[in-house]
Amino acid sequence: MTRNGGGSIFLLTDYGHADEFAGVVRAVLVRNAPGAAVVDLTHDVPAFAIRAGALALCRAAPHLGPGVVLAVVDPGVGTVRRAVAVSTAVSGARGGPRWFVGPDNGLLPWTLDALGGADAVAVLRRAGPRGAATFDGRDLFAPAAARLWRGDALDEVGDPTDPASLVRLADPVTSVGSGVVASEVLWIDRFGNVQLAAGPDDAASAGLGVALLVVAAQATLPVRRVGAFAELAGGELGLVVDANGRLALVCNRWSAATVLAVAEGDEVTLRAAPAGPGGR
Amino acid sequence: MTRNGGGSIFLLTDYGHADEFAGVVRAVLVRNAPGAAVVDLTHDVPAFAIRAGALALCRAAPHLGPGVVLAVVDPGVGTVRRAVAVSTAVSGARGGPRWFVGPDNGLLPWTLDALGGADAVAVLRRAGPRGAATFDGRDLFAPAAARLWRGDALDEVGDPTDPASLVRLADPVTSVGSGVVASEVLWIDRFGNVQLAAGPDDAASAGLGVALLVVAAQATLPVRRVGAFAELAGGELGLVVDANGRLALVCNRWSAATVLAVAEGDEVTLRAAPAGPGGR
Amino acid sequence: MTRNGGGSIFLLTDYGHADEFAGVVRAVLVRNAPGAAVVDLTHDVPAFAIRAGALALCRAAPHLGPGVVLAVVDPGVGTVRRAVAVSTAVSGARGGPRWFVGPDNGLLPWTLDALGGADAVAVLRRAGPRGAATFDGRDLFAPAAARLWRGDALDEVGDPTDPASLVRLADPVTSVGSGVVASEVLWIDRFGNVQLAAGPDDAASAGLGVALLVVAAQATLPVRRVGAFAELAGGELGLVVDANGRLALVCNRWSAATVLAVAEGDEVTLRAAPAGPGGR
Repeated sequence: MTRNGGGSIFLLTDYGHADEFAGVVRAVLVRNAPGAAVVDLTHDVPAFAIRAGALALCRAAPHLGPGVVLAVVDPGVGTVRRAVAVSTAVSGARGGPRWFVGPDNGLLPWTLDALGGADAVAVLRRAGPRGAATFDGRDLFAPAAARLWRGDALDEVGDPTDPASLVRLADPVTSVGSGVVASEVLWIDRFGNVQLAAGPDDAASAGLGVALLVVAAQATLPVRRVGAFAELAGGELGLVVDANGRLALVCNRWSAATVLAVAEGDEVTLRAAPAGPGGR
Repeated sequence: MTRNGGGSIFLLTDYGHADEFAGVVRAVLVRNAPGAAVVDLTHDVPAFAIRAGALALCRAAPHLGPGVVLAVVDPGVGTVRRAVAVSTAVSGARGGPRWFVGPDNGLLPWTLDALGGADAVAVLRRAGPRGAATFDGRDLFAPAAARLWRGDALDEVGDPTDPASLVRLADPVTSVGSGVVASEVLWIDRFGNVQLAAGPDDAASAGLGVALLVVAAQATLPVRRVGAFAELAGGELGLVVDANGRLALVCNRWSAATVLAVAEGDEVTLRAAPAGPGGR
Repeated sequence: MTRNGGGSIFLLTDYGHADEFAGVVRAVLVRNAPGAAVVDLTHDVPAFAIRAGALALCRAAPHLGPGVVLAVVDPGVGTVRRAVAVSTAVSGARGGPRWFVGPDNGLLPWTLDALGGADAVAVLRRAGPRGAATFDGRDLFAPAAARLWRGDALDEVGDPTDPASLVRLADPVTSVGSGVVASEVLWIDRFGNVQLAAGPDDAASAGLGVALLVVAAQATLPVRRVGAFAELAGGELGLVVDANGRLALVCNRWSAATVLAVAEGDEVTLRAAPAGPGGR
């Protein structure tokens, strides 16, 4: 415990707040990595929602300083999957997190890609067979994260494996045509803003202008491309570039997700609004 | 980063817990103010509820040690308002927070007043126009709070402006007559206790005794002035001085707000109960 | 403040997140115990649920490092009860928490028993009579926890009393017969797993096998004893040893509590399933 890898330990889980799960993991980290700043990113990833957790981690990743990321979202407690620790030399050299610890179920790779790639992966060693009698966050992930934070090498906490062997989620779906962009809804935040997988480059490629239609399963509505929320009239639907650099459907002080009746994972299509007397 | 302003960084926001908003702000603070104790006051101010946020900050303020307060509640993401940093020399000298960072929308002044007043205010400089593509807590407020914590001067993080130019909310409404106190409901806590703007001095000025009536829009009920919850019988409505020094309508293990059908912002009137055979 | 008792300060309360209660307690701790790691175990013990809080503390206790535990769950704000600080020499010597601070209402003793017992108890001194105008977590418990963390002796923060005088909750109910185990439901976690008071020793004493019936007030259902969630078919009810070493009724990706229609505090009975053509 004399070598100090340093930095923070960042937590992202689906443990919620009703139970003491997140608190016990924090306690294990503080006990095993005394002096670490333990930073809760979120514990409210919906249960079993690996995709939502992977996207939240991606959004947070560019803003994290040095240290270790501990991320846990499980696809179902009974599922067999490996527990891994990952080193990311490029991210570490840039002042971002150098290590990631979590399940090998797709939660980590998008973020690893965005931070310069995984350069080594180790499979954590379990004391026994994985059963109901273990709480992986407490018994496996937190101790490993603490060891990496203290300076232990990756091959001291697990057995090396090929980074290419990590399980990956299906990439978000976007398709671009002339005057049309179809996109998966990635995220609906607490304000009801609807973040799309598509970005401003997709809108440019499709030649989308200012006056648009958005087509969802239950609604087709006019939407206006704006630079800021403040340009929207009350109740008007807008298309903006959001704080993560993606296109988002928004209303001013209202939930665009409610107006459009869309959920995360749905597909929506943006197209040019028809010109005409009723057009905007 | 060698000058260390020291102390904690206190957070009060309307970000909720469902998303990673608060977590990303914490990460930016820890990255830019390494060694700072980041203290979450609350992240559950209702969305857009500036008044509720300002009152929560007032209640917390007397108990805060040295450092920086970062408070964010927005009245609507599209609203134009300045972002400010404030220094409070008196509070700092007394061992309380010396700096406040947040929107200029009324969230801060009541607390500043209570802590001895703002002695200087600076308008934070934005990298570009305020649009949807910025997340002020992450991109503007947290970096400024970290710089102040590290010891940067106020005029290094923004452009000086007149403290008297800060936007103020309408003061809470209380009116006192002979035998009658009318008061705004400031806060309903998770136990349903109903905190009034009026304080014990108002009750004394009005000459209110022990046996009272409380008149709300949907209910007029007897209420008894007591010194402690323990004096109340089951289901009985009491009037106490609460832990913030204000009058509060309470029930023992029951929600006074439900009994009275009142919400934050409503007005209630306290008056002497009529004497008589049915009187208490 | 030169003697530093060291370690963390662990928080477990029923304050919830909607108000700033937990945040103000954190601020008071950081102010009075600068440098302490304040570790939130949970603040979502249901209001007034002393038993649920005591059980959550028991589950967390084996994983806590050195320091002070501050636990608050009140049975009703008006109830008269003592406020106590407890020292636990055995736990401290083992690298666990050495001090506990909280109400004398049954919240602490199970955890104290599990950690080697209370060796001294002091009744905290109040500045005045207990009324509505005090917020015990902020005004009494947090200052006492900070003093103990800094190294003050137990008799400096309160008046010694007999550890045997601490209020105790009724022990969890389990009864074991030949081929039958009846047990209280201790905890239903966010995934709907149903933790019983009974443990694997009880199942062994009763001679329970693999094919069982569980009898609850509203349902009698087959249940299979398994080693891990992964052995369960979709919708199948399993009996496992959980991560706290107790028996638990579980489903794979589904709520066993919903299937069985049970709540915390209910009693369920496990018995051998009848053999027969329809038996498993």
